[in-house]
Formats: sequence, structure tokens, C-alpha cells
Amino acid sequence: MRIVILGMGSVGRGVLASIMEKDLPFTVTGIADSKSGIVDPSGIDPGKVMTIKREKGICGNPGITPIDVVRQADYDVLVEVTTTNATTGEPATSHIREAIMRGRHVVTSNKGPLALHFRELKALAREHDVSLRYEATVAGAIPVMHTIENGLAGNRINAIYGVLNGTCNYILTRMAEEGLSYEQALIEARELGYAEADPTYDVKGIDAAIKVVILANTIWNMNVGLSDVEVTGIDLLTTAAIRLAEEQDCTIRLLGEAVPNKNLLRVSPRILPRDHPLVLNGTLNALTLSTDLAGDITLIGKGAGSKETASAIIGDILFIKRMYAGRA
Amino acid sequence: MRIVILGMGSVGRGVLASIMEKDLPFTVTGIADSKSGIVDPSGIDPGKVMTIKREKGICGNPGITPIDVVRQADYDVLVEVTTTNATTGEPATSHIREAIMRGRHVVTSNKGPLALHFRELKALAREHDVSLRYEATVAGAIPVMHTIENGLAGNRINAIYGVLNGTCNYILTRMAEEGLSYEQALIEARELGYAEADPTYDVKGIDAAIKVVILANTIWNMNVGLSDVEVTGIDLLTTAAIRLAEEQDCTIRLLGEAVPNKNLLRVSPRILPRDHPLVLNGTLNALTLSTDLAGDITLIGKGAGSKETASAIIGDILFIKRMYAGRA
Repeated sequence: MRIVILGMGSVGRGVLASIMEKDLPFTVTGIADSKSGIVDPSGIDPGKVMTIKREKGICGNPGITPIDVVRQADYDVLVEVTTTNATTGEPATSHIREAIMRGRHVVTSNKGPLALHFRELKALAREHDVSLRYEATVAGAIPVMHTIENGLAGNRINAIYGVLNGTCNYILTRMAEEGLSYEQALIEARELGYAEADPTYDVKGIDAAIKVVILANTIWNMNVGLSDVEVTGIDLLTTAAIRLAEEQDCTIRLLGEAVPNKNLLRVSPRILPRDHPLVLNGTLNALTLSTDLAGDITLIGKGAGSKETASAIIGDILFIKRMYAGRA
Repeated sequence: MRIVILGMGSVGRGVLASIMEKDLPFTVTGIADSKSGIVDPSGIDPGKVMTIKREKGICGNPGITPIDVVRQADYDVLVEVTTTNATTGEPATSHIREAIMRGRHVVTSNKGPLALHFRELKALAREHDVSLRYEATVAGAIPVMHTIENGLAGNRINAIYGVLNGTCNYILTRMAEEGLSYEQALIEARELGYAEADPTYDVKGIDAAIKVVILANTIWNMNVGLSDVEVTGIDLLTTAAIRLAEEQDCTIRLLGEAVPNKNLLRVSPRILPRDHPLVLNGTLNALTLSTDLAGDITLIGKGAGSKETASAIIGDILFIKRMYAGRA
């Protein structure tokens, strides 16, 4: 498979590192970060690019933009792993559209295009007979999309419940375990690299809500957006509220829920029994799929990280390779 | 897809019921139980067969055997869901071999053939360019094989740890929760239909060990059998031992483990912290896959049941359909 990688942040570098370490059957024919690009039909040495990026801060020629790479490179799969912009979805949406219209498959970790233009992009991919895969957009390393698509094919999924934001889960874990205030736990999360300098997106529940949107659109072919989700964050939670829950063998977790037959799309702090399968400590993510045949299936794993997200990306590329080879 | 179903026990009936309820794109062209069979290239009405089976105890013509159906019917996929014989693997192994040699795909819930003839059957399927799928053999409704094959493709799996027998998990749960003795909990499990009249296979850890064998052969292309697994059951566990664990915020679970770089294949009662992800109550199953990129991924769900096993079977048939259609 010839692939092009757009984005040289933690995810892009994770994908390149895995290709190097694992001798995966991929040839990288184009790479771009926000400031430069490189196109080479004969294959780019991932190690060399990583070194250049580390030393100079850019990966290639400053005259080449990401969209140039999308248009000029020769590839089977576009790996779109630029930074998510949840308001405009750009520039990722343009990259994805352009690649699909060139008849290329797309694998992405970028939540913006999926949250904002789900139906359009899926239809465009169908029209051009290519695959658009986005395992990495929800719950990091946990293969939720593969499970929905294949493992549970034949089931009707009636509802989903998930802990979809590791930053919030870390903060809530620490508030419960150590009696920290929200502010103290947030500072700790920042120091450990689990929270961004501006944590709004995570702690207000927006990131979790975007994942609920992507799941709902995928599972039930909905056409919903962020504004359709009732969202409450964790930033107003008090230590006293958590202590009260703990006194009753419960705790509080930020839960994303989608239950179509109750018209429910919600992200909010919920009181859960401490032995509930979705009560996990630290930055873990988890998702329960409630189905008609298989009952409840719960998946637990790491929701973020460079290697973890690369795992999802690589799984998607290999799945495209397998599907288009046409053998089980 | 034209399918043949061998076995009209709980799993076979579950598959037929799902085909009826869900209007799945399958035509059933042959069915057999241990005493009778029916072949009809124009399609068998699942409802009619279920009624006949309920009323007469057989599903078709007493002159037609399962192997006749394998040989004579016209089908794409053989669904082998006869009762497991863990000692001989028969007659299921013969059914599977014959179908593969006729160039048919096979989907099975039967652990015998996989535990005893894994490598031979996989090689035979490869040789005949057909698919042999067995999601239902391990952990019931939980799509562990799909996760290993696709969701985590690109990962190296370093170890697996699982609660793979619901009967044992139920007994251990009740011993811990209510202070029941092993014998009392076993009686209760029998009354609820969670344990067989002869529970040896479950409580001695044999069933869990067979699943460890199937997983190890699948993940690491091993060639191991039941005798390669160090097996200790739960039948000698005392209430006192469980109480002791509980006093230290731990409990005991029957754990299946495979860790190749420690040469470890083992099923044994293990002391685990009560908040460990594999500590679940009742008849649930769970499996943790320890990987290099994705970290630990844990899957939890129902390990048995008619509908639950049908979910795995149907997922496998639909996957074959998808793969051989050659589109992602």
C-alpha cells in the first residue's frame, strides 16, 4: 500500500515510528506538516523524515503544502492526522474531499470532518467507491468501529454508553481517590500531559460529545451534530458531590450516551456504582454497546497516545488492504 | 448466501430464529440434527423446521445424515454447530473437512475440531481458498477473533488473560457474595441452567483450557493442544480461601493465561484485586489482550447463550459475505 501522511504531530510520528519498527507493507509516498511537504513516488525513508522534523521542526520543502501533497502524490490511502478543528473541520475536510475525489481511500484520526460533514463524506466515498475509515476518532486504541462494523454485524445496537474522554476520567479519578478539588486535579492532569493548556474542549464535555455524534451517525446512520447533544461538563463538579457518591459505594464519571428510541444524545457526569464496568481509573476509555443478540459488550482500553492512535490508524489501513484484496 | 446448518441444539435454533427475525440475506439449503436431515436447494423455511423440531424432536428425514447434507446440499457456508466432543472432535471434524474439500466456507461454534486439529483444518481451508471462522468457540458473544484479526491488526499481542468459563465465574461469584460452599454454589448454578448435570468439563478448567488453546493457536500460530496447558479447576476451592482473599479487597477468579515469552499456558484460580477489569460477576466472560501499540484491550460480555452464540455465528457469515464481495 502506498500511503500519504498529513500531519506530523504525535499521531503522524506514531504512525511513522510503527512503520519503521514493524516493517509494515506500506510505502510512504508523501508527507506534509502545516509548514512543509515532501512527495516521492519511490518511497520516503520514515527515519530520515523523523530526524529532519526533530532537528528543523519541518518535515520537507516549505514550498509544498498539504493540499499539494494530496493532489500530486501517488498513493492508495490518505492518512489524515492533522489537528482537529471542531468548529470548521478545516483544513482536514478539504484534504479528505480532495483525496476521495481522486479515488483514494482515507484513514483519519481527525474528529472535525466526521463530526461536521459525516453524511457528505460518507456519500462521497461511496460515490467514488473508496473506503473512509476513522477508528482513531473514537476511544483511541479501542477498536470500536471494527466491533460495530464486523464483530457485532447482525446485531441491532439499541444504545451506547461510554467513557470517551481520558482527561475527564483522570480528573474524576483523582478527585475521588485523593479528595482533590477539580482545580487541583486539573493542575495535576496538566503536569502529566493529560490535559491541554486550555482544557475547555475536554472538561466541558465537547470532545466526548463529538465522539457520541460520530458513533450515532455511524451506528444508526443519523445526521446529527454537536448541537444535537445535551452536554454538561465536569468543571462545576465539587469534591463534596463525589464524596457523597463514594459514601454510597458509587462514584461519578463523565458518561456519553446515545439511546435512539428515547431520543437521547447526552454527555453528563453520572453517578455509577463503583463496580460498574464503565468505572475505570486514570485515563482509560470504555464503551458499552447494548445489542439485541449479543447483549451488552463492553470494550476497555487506552483512549489516547501516540502509539495507541497509531494502532487504530494502522488497523484501518490493513483492513482496507485486506478488503480490497478480497479474501477472508 | 446459501447456508447449511448442522446441529439443532440451542445454537442451531438460535441461528434459525435470528434468520427469521432479522430477515438476514441467507438462504438455508440444508439442515441436519443427529437423527435426521433435510436438503432443499430452493430454500428451507426456518419457521417450519423449528415447529417440526419442537413437535417431533427431529428436523427432517431420518434417512438423511449430517454428512449426507454436507455432501449433497448446495451452499456457500457450512454452519457447524453440533455438540462439542473434546476427545475425538467428531463428527464435527469430518463435517468440516468434507465441506472445505468441497470448496465451501465453514463457520463453527464447535471447539473440538479447533482444539484438536487446528493447524490441519486451517491449512486445508487455505489450500481450498475458503474461510474457516470460529468466533463462537471462544467467549460467546464477545467478538474476540474479529478484534485479534482486524481491530488490532498491526499489533503484536504479547499475552492474553481471560475469564473464559461462565459456569465457574458464576460459582465463584456466589461463593464470594453469599459465602456459599462450592457444592452449594454448584447446585444453584445447575438449577439456573448455568451448569450441566456433569459439570466436570467446566469446573475442572477443561473448557477454559480449550479456549486458551484455540486463542494461542490463532494469535501466535502455535500448534498446541489441551495437554500443553497447565490446568487447575475450581472444584477444590474452599469458602475459606475466598473469604481470605475478600478480606484483602481481592477475590478469586478462574483465569486462562497465555504468555508465549514465558512459555506459559495455564488455567487456574487466581487471586485478583476486586477492581481488576477481569473481576466480573455472574456468568460474564472477559478477555484482556496485551499488545505492543494499543496497550491492554479488555473485552467483556456474555460467554454463552443461544442468541449470544448466534450473534457470533452470524457475524462470521456476514464477514465472509463482505470479504468475498471485496469491498470495504
